[in-house]
Amino acid sequence: MLVVMKAHATEEQVRGVCEKIERLGYRAHAMPGAQRTAIGITGNKGEVEQGTLEEMAGVQEVIKVSKPYKLVSRDLKEDNTVIRFAGTEATIGGTGLAIVAGPCAVESREQAFAVAERVHRAGAQFFRGGAYKPRTSPYSFQGLGEEGLRIMAEIRQQYGMKIITEAIDNESLDLVEEYADVIQIGARNMQNFSLLKRAGRAKKPVLLKRGMSATLEEFLMAAEYILSEGNYNVALCERGVRTFADHTRNTLDLSLIPAVQRLSHLPIFVDPSHGTGKRNKVTPLSRAAVAVGADGLMVEVHNKPDEAMSDGPQSLFPDQFDELMKQVRQIASVVGRTVPGIGLREKVGVSM
Amino acid sequence: MLVVMKAHATEEQVRGVCEKIERLGYRAHAMPGAQRTAIGITGNKGEVEQGTLEEMAGVQEVIKVSKPYKLVSRDLKEDNTVIRFAGTEATIGGTGLAIVAGPCAVESREQAFAVAERVHRAGAQFFRGGAYKPRTSPYSFQGLGEEGLRIMAEIRQQYGMKIITEAIDNESLDLVEEYADVIQIGARNMQNFSLLKRAGRAKKPVLLKRGMSATLEEFLMAAEYILSEGNYNVALCERGVRTFADHTRNTLDLSLIPAVQRLSHLPIFVDPSHGTGKRNKVTPLSRAAVAVGADGLMVEVHNKPDEAMSDGPQSLFPDQFDELMKQVRQIASVVGRTVPGIGLREKVGVSM
Amino acid sequence: MLVVMKAHATEEQVRGVCEKIERLGYRAHAMPGAQRTAIGITGNKGEVEQGTLEEMAGVQEVIKVSKPYKLVSRDLKEDNTVIRFAGTEATIGGTGLAIVAGPCAVESREQAFAVAERVHRAGAQFFRGGAYKPRTSPYSFQGLGEEGLRIMAEIRQQYGMKIITEAIDNESLDLVEEYADVIQIGARNMQNFSLLKRAGRAKKPVLLKRGMSATLEEFLMAAEYILSEGNYNVALCERGVRTFADHTRNTLDLSLIPAVQRLSHLPIFVDPSHGTGKRNKVTPLSRAAVAVGADGLMVEVHNKPDEAMSDGPQSLFPDQFDELMKQVRQIASVVGRTVPGIGLREKVGVSM
Amino acid sequence: MLVVMKAHATEEQVRGVCEKIERLGYRAHAMPGAQRTAIGITGNKGEVEQGTLEEMAGVQEVIKVSKPYKLVSRDLKEDNTVIRFAGTEATIGGTGLAIVAGPCAVESREQAFAVAERVHRAGAQFFRGGAYKPRTSPYSFQGLGEEGLRIMAEIRQQYGMKIITEAIDNESLDLVEEYADVIQIGARNMQNFSLLKRAGRAKKPVLLKRGMSATLEEFLMAAEYILSEGNYNVALCERGVRTFADHTRNTLDLSLIPAVQRLSHLPIFVDPSHGTGKRNKVTPLSRAAVAVGADGLMVEVHNKPDEAMSDGPQSLFPDQFDELMKQVRQIASVVGRTVPGIGLREKVGVSM
Repeated sequence: MLVVMKAHATEEQVRGVCEKIERLGYRAHAMPGAQRTAIGITGNKGEVEQGTLEEMAGVQEVIKVSKPYKLVSRDLKEDNTVIRFAGTEATIGGTGLAIVAGPCAVESREQAFAVAERVHRAGAQFFRGGAYKPRTSPYSFQGLGEEGLRIMAEIRQQYGMKIITEAIDNESLDLVEEYADVIQIGARNMQNFSLLKRAGRAKKPVLLKRGMSATLEEFLMAAEYILSEGNYNVALCERGVRTFADHTRNTLDLSLIPAVQRLSHLPIFVDPSHGTGKRNKVTPLSRAAVAVGADGLMVEVHNKPDEAMSDGPQSLFPDQFDELMKQVRQIASVVGRTVPGIGLREKVGVSM
Repeated sequence: MLVVMKAHATEEQVRGVCEKIERLGYRAHAMPGAQRTAIGITGNKGEVEQGTLEEMAGVQEVIKVSKPYKLVSRDLKEDNTVIRFAGTEATIGGTGLAIVAGPCAVESREQAFAVAERVHRAGAQFFRGGAYKPRTSPYSFQGLGEEGLRIMAEIRQQYGMKIITEAIDNESLDLVEEYADVIQIGARNMQNFSLLKRAGRAKKPVLLKRGMSATLEEFLMAAEYILSEGNYNVALCERGVRTFADHTRNTLDLSLIPAVQRLSHLPIFVDPSHGTGKRNKVTPLSRAAVAVGADGLMVEVHNKPDEAMSDGPQSLFPDQFDELMKQVRQIASVVGRTVPGIGLREKVGVSM
Repeated sequence: MLVVMKAHATEEQVRGVCEKIERLGYRAHAMPGAQRTAIGITGNKGEVEQGTLEEMAGVQEVIKVSKPYKLVSRDLKEDNTVIRFAGTEATIGGTGLAIVAGPCAVESREQAFAVAERVHRAGAQFFRGGAYKPRTSPYSFQGLGEEGLRIMAEIRQQYGMKIITEAIDNESLDLVEEYADVIQIGARNMQNFSLLKRAGRAKKPVLLKRGMSATLEEFLMAAEYILSEGNYNVALCERGVRTFADHTRNTLDLSLIPAVQRLSHLPIFVDPSHGTGKRNKVTPLSRAAVAVGADGLMVEVHNKPDEAMSDGPQSLFPDQFDELMKQVRQIASVVGRTVPGIGLREKVGVSM
Repeated sequence: MLVVMKAHATEEQVRGVCEKIERLGYRAHAMPGAQRTAIGITGNKGEVEQGTLEEMAGVQEVIKVSKPYKLVSRDLKEDNTVIRFAGTEATIGGTGLAIVAGPCAVESREQAFAVAERVHRAGAQFFRGGAYKPRTSPYSFQGLGEEGLRIMAEIRQQYGMKIITEAIDNESLDLVEEYADVIQIGARNMQNFSLLKRAGRAKKPVLLKRGMSATLEEFLMAAEYILSEGNYNVALCERGVRTFADHTRNTLDLSLIPAVQRLSHLPIFVDPSHGTGKRNKVTPLSRAAVAVGADGLMVEVHNKPDEAMSDGPQSLFPDQFDELMKQVRQIASVVGRTVPGIGLREKVGVSM
């Protein structure tokens, strides 16, 4: 159920409807938009008695939602969600393209800073690095844990980049929430519903990656878990799906971008590093991702890819990332997106 | 690394080698077999100095393991793992076929007992029922929680069937470990490594289901996570994978059974209910599963499938489960397996 | 459209309705069944005027068919199609299980006879061998062509086995129709509609293999192409589909067997050789195929698999085929199927 | 085997080596490049005696090719293949982007001309339209046949666009070769090796579409069939593969473009119409295809999509195609490609 408020409904009227909903035993989710505020109702089995709400002050109409997802739907919120961060102009989901770059895993202070310095200079506004690594083998490097988080906090301090890093269970999520700016939920945990609920109660935005064989609907429903707990700052990320094709590690499904944007107000990233698994495919697919309309890119960069403790073959050399940024900026300008940050100033010299 | 003890090595010699390994800073996993004991070494990055161990009393040879999985491998343990339970002759992995049956979710005491009575009478030695349900939608029925576990404990009391139920996070795993006989890890959590590690520290056997798009190697590595923490009582379960095919909910991959049995000593179940998603396919695919050599079946049965709160379309009516058991018994006898329990006595009257 | 005749309609009445249909400019396909004859109408765009036909002598009712396939549907023909051959009791689609065995390709007279002698002795009623091989590489062995067909005709002469071999274009189909007993259309040509139409005008039965990524509906529609041209003797064959799974060459989809049998009257084979691509998986999956209810098996056997010019790794040694036949006979007896031929006499000595 | 000639080898020397190869019983394929000519050798089982050739005048070296594909490989021909057409500057594979547009099927003279007029005006240099349609159902519209070809020949006459249309068997290929400029082999026939060989003997260029579940290697090997018969003017086309994903008709695999370009000298198109199956995804994916580096686009446009006899839901309205061309031109300019034709002049007015 969805309550659409009138264009000029007051804050008080919105609050009144929300309180009524909660008194009825449900949960109210107010989503302010440019034109109007809509209020999603969850926690109801079956239908809420429509009449009571329809008669309230400021209410325009009460709509039954037939899709399985509610809060992530454009039906509830027509305008794109834009995630903002204190102390930076960088956003996720606005006109600016959000660029996330960094190593697969934080391996040491030296390595992390070496990469951070270069991706920052190239224009990335977000730094990624794994402190908790979900590895196929129990005998592989599992990340530096809290030590890795501390290193990334220093990187934020030094370069002003916002930090995105993965949480793999409730314990690590507590720490990631404390140290980082965006909590990443990885592909393998896309349907770890217990973790999604915990992320829904976090105070930080969440970046949710698509599961390896998740349909569009399952992906949106996983996001719905987070929103249903009250955290509306969620960004999605396409990172390739598993198919028979063997020329890339995964098959990057770029058609998902316009498909998500049609159904949902949430921003969506593309991760061409996991999406292809091959260094020489990352830049062309980054261009394609921006051209198709993605709201951001998430790219693995390593100062010494050949010595990386994980995902070396798909990590770019810093020079390659510079080149990627140049190309991406030009594509971005064609599709009406900007790439803010240091890079923008540099752009003047680039021959277009 | 793998230390193979001599055929007549004493327990003391085995203990000596294990202690030596632990003193070197690694973890020792002794796996007694019919002919010999082998000791797996984990926790080593790179190679352990072979010489020290090779010279110890009772040691026959020290072998480098080239496969990524170690403890689940037949290289380490030639004999099939057989999981035994106090107070019943039912095993998982022995000559007897393990039959797990019950509703998708425990919905009420009445429903659970109604199903339990019927599947027990038909010969099932294990009762399944979900208390914690991983549901695609946050708004769907999520299970009765601890109340469901209590109902199942009563069922064990009454019928003697052992209880298998799913844990979805550390909290529910604590409770499942307390109430149930086998802890199930579902397909969606197959690479929830944090949960796998917790299950590896549990005192109860674990049933691990294959992820929706997991390769054989990823599946074995997920099991390796559990064994690497010291819990060697692990059974696997094929439950269909996601493909383009749309005549069934998933594509049941029966070739996985002989493939697992070649590489690993762990028993493997087939779940034809999730594997097909269609009631009318469950019995034929159960016959096929037993014919291909599966160690057990996991089947959803409901007293009123049309009113089931989840998975109704794939749940058998109790009468259909009776018929399934009859057919499965006959196939089992051809492949040298028995179906123990009440059913066995009944078998006398069945015309073969 | 489908005209259902009364139970006691005379042949003349059936003929009358068919002639009427043809006069209206359509094509009539009479399908006699145990209880009644039904007449399928094709060639109509949109609907046929029902009235005219409904009033004719012997007509019980005229039914609109909503499914895209008509002639292959059980709606038109309730009874299973049984394909019979002169001079042998072997059938495709009856109670007897049809066993097709032989090498991937006929490589020489010696090789073909060596294999034929063994598979015949083991109980196969059909001999398979490729004379025209669709090979991924233009530089691989493409088959002996007509010479291969002549060798197989000699094998029929000598052993009484019926010959099944693949046609890859109209030219080879002409020759296969002349020399062989069953025309095989391979997986790669499942949607070569031009070839399907030609096969539909052939005087010999057709074995149609499922395409590598064909849905059930596409598979049935491909068969419909053959029937729509007037050839109703069609058998289907599941041979594995392409998925992400890499432990077998293809993923054998046994759930297709009951799915086909529900919707269609056509018999269906399983090819566990292509379905798995691995010799050690062929026998377990053959057991499973018979247990699930397949009407026949198609198995690759070679006298010297290691020297085979194609598909060596999935070809059984003759001794392995003997063992397969023993096991399959026992499973067959459980599901109410017989394995006729020499093997049947041998069966007496087998301890069940 | 591959003979690399010296940079300044004369035509006579090249001819000499080719004649020698043919005298040895093999087939020689001379591939002139910007720097050097290389000569591929096919028809050899095993190795050709290297010595004889290495000593010939003009020969620099003789190389063994380890990849299964030879003639399509960049090892043989370093420079991109550029397909040229008499009477037009449009090329396939050059700096200019090749734009193919038109209806799925030619339904009538009026329809075809209506679409042709619009796509020509928008800048398409190639007109597509099916005269022979491979349809899933035998009862669906199968194309106008030769009448359709005649209509397209008139369109070429009137608008100067080159004609691309599909051949589905040897008979239709004869006619397509006569009437059209490029012979298309569809996805369903990608491994119809008999048809590929016939196309290899045709005098016109061939556009080969990727099969629905073809790996990169299988795709290149299918092209190799055509080249091995002497037709070196081959272009490839990615058109989506079959996966579990259900938000689009197929999953468009754009990573294939850089993958093909790395291994082969052949140009590669993208077909976003079949690749997505949804009108609203065609334009974003066209942008992405050009951004990733495709050599051309193949787009379905219909004057009345809602009345189309096939593929209506994925066909663009002419106005949408105008908009697509505008966007594509801008992306093209970023990746160093031009969109020649009428469109180019129009471009001046477009604000970039």
